[in-house]
Amino acid sequence: MGRWEPNARGRLEQAALELYVERGYEQTPVAEIASRAGLTERTFFRHFADKREVLFAGSGRLAELCVDAVAAAPPTATPMDAVAAALDAAAGVFEERGDLVRTRQGVIDANAELRERELIKLASLSTALADALRERGADELTAGLTAETAVAVLKVAFGRWMDGGQERPLRPLLCECFDVLRTLSARGAVGAG
Amino acid sequence: MGRWEPNARGRLEQAALELYVERGYEQTPVAEIASRAGLTERTFFRHFADKREVLFAGSGRLAELCVDAVAAAPPTATPMDAVAAALDAAAGVFEERGDLVRTRQGVIDANAELRERELIKLASLSTALADALRERGADELTAGLTAETAVAVLKVAFGRWMDGGQERPLRPLLCECFDVLRTLSARGAVGAG
Repeated sequence: MGRWEPNARGRLEQAALELYVERGYEQTPVAEIASRAGLTERTFFRHFADKREVLFAGSGRLAELCVDAVAAAPPTATPMDAVAAALDAAAGVFEERGDLVRTRQGVIDANAELRERELIKLASLSTALADALRERGADELTAGLTAETAVAVLKVAFGRWMDGGQERPLRPLLCECFDVLRTLSARGAVGAG
Repeated sequence: MGRWEPNARGRLEQAALELYVERGYEQTPVAEIASRAGLTERTFFRHFADKREVLFAGSGRLAELCVDAVAAAPPTATPMDAVAAALDAAAGVFEERGDLVRTRQGVIDANAELRERELIKLASLSTALADALRERGADELTAGLTAETAVAVLKVAFGRWMDGGQERPLRPLLCECFDVLRTLSARGAVGAG
C-alpha cells in the first residue's frame, strides 16, 4: 500500500459491500468496486484475489484469532472451555464490526455460491480448532468432536444474533447456546421435541 | 425405466464409481459411464441430472430417512434422543452399503468441488432435522442446536468409521460420540486439552 492510497483495503471492502447490496454480487464488476473506492483495478488485485475474496478475507484472520485463543486458554481449561474462549474472542470482533457483519451476511445469504463458500470456511475453522486442541494434548475424538460442536454453536448463535437484529449481543447468545447444549446432551434430559 | 434396462440406476452408479476411481472424477465423461453400464447416455440422463448427481442422489433419501426417524421417535424421546435415532437409521443404510460408501467417500475426498457439495448436503440435512424437531414441538434454539450437533456427531463418527477401515461398525461409533459429547459438554468436565 503506497501512502497515496490510505486505507485502500478498507475503502475497497466498503465500496464492494455497498455495490453488492445496491446491485447484487453477481452484477458488480471489480472495475466498479475500484472506481467507487477511488482506486484502480490494479490496486484492487494487490489486496484481493477476486471479488469473492473481499467477503472472505476476514475468515482466515478469524480462524487465527480462534486458534490463538485456544492456545492461550489456561492448562486447566477443558477442551469445551478452550473453544468457548475462542468463540468469545471471535464474537468480540463481530460485535465491533456489527453493521458491516450484518451487511456482509445479507450479501452471502442472497447468493448460493457465497453460502457454499461460507460453509467451506466454517469447515476450515473446525479443522483449525481441532488442530489447536490436539496441540493442547486432546485426543483425536475429543479434538474433532469439540471443534465440530464449537462450529455448530457458532452457526446457531450467529444466526440468532442476525435474526434478532443484533439486539442481544453475540457473546451472551454464545453462552446461552453452550448452556442449552449442556442440558440437551445430558442423559435423560427432559424436553419436548 | 423400461423393462429392457433392469436396474439401470444401480448399474450406472456402479459404473460411475468404478470409472471415478480408475480415472478420476474429472476425467470421466457421462458417455463412458453409460457405455460401461451397457446403457445409453439418454438413459443416464433419465436417472441423473449430471455425473455429480450419481454421487449425491442418495443424500436426499438419507435426509428423508432421518426426518422420518425423528417423526417416529416416541413422544417421550428428548430432541437429542430423536436425532440419535435418526443417525442410527442412517447408519444402518451406510453399513449395508459399506464398500460402496467407502469408494464413494474416496472419490469425494479427492476432489474439492465434491467436498464442497458434501458440505452443502450436510447443511441441508441439518435444516431438515431442525424442521422435523420443530414439528415435534421443539423451540427454535433447541431445534437448531440439536440438529447442528447431530450433524457434527455424524461427521466425526463417519470420519472415524472411514479412517478405521470400518473395523468398528458405525452405530457404536455414533453412540460413543454422543457419550463423549455429553462428558465434554458437562460443566467442569475434567479433561486434558
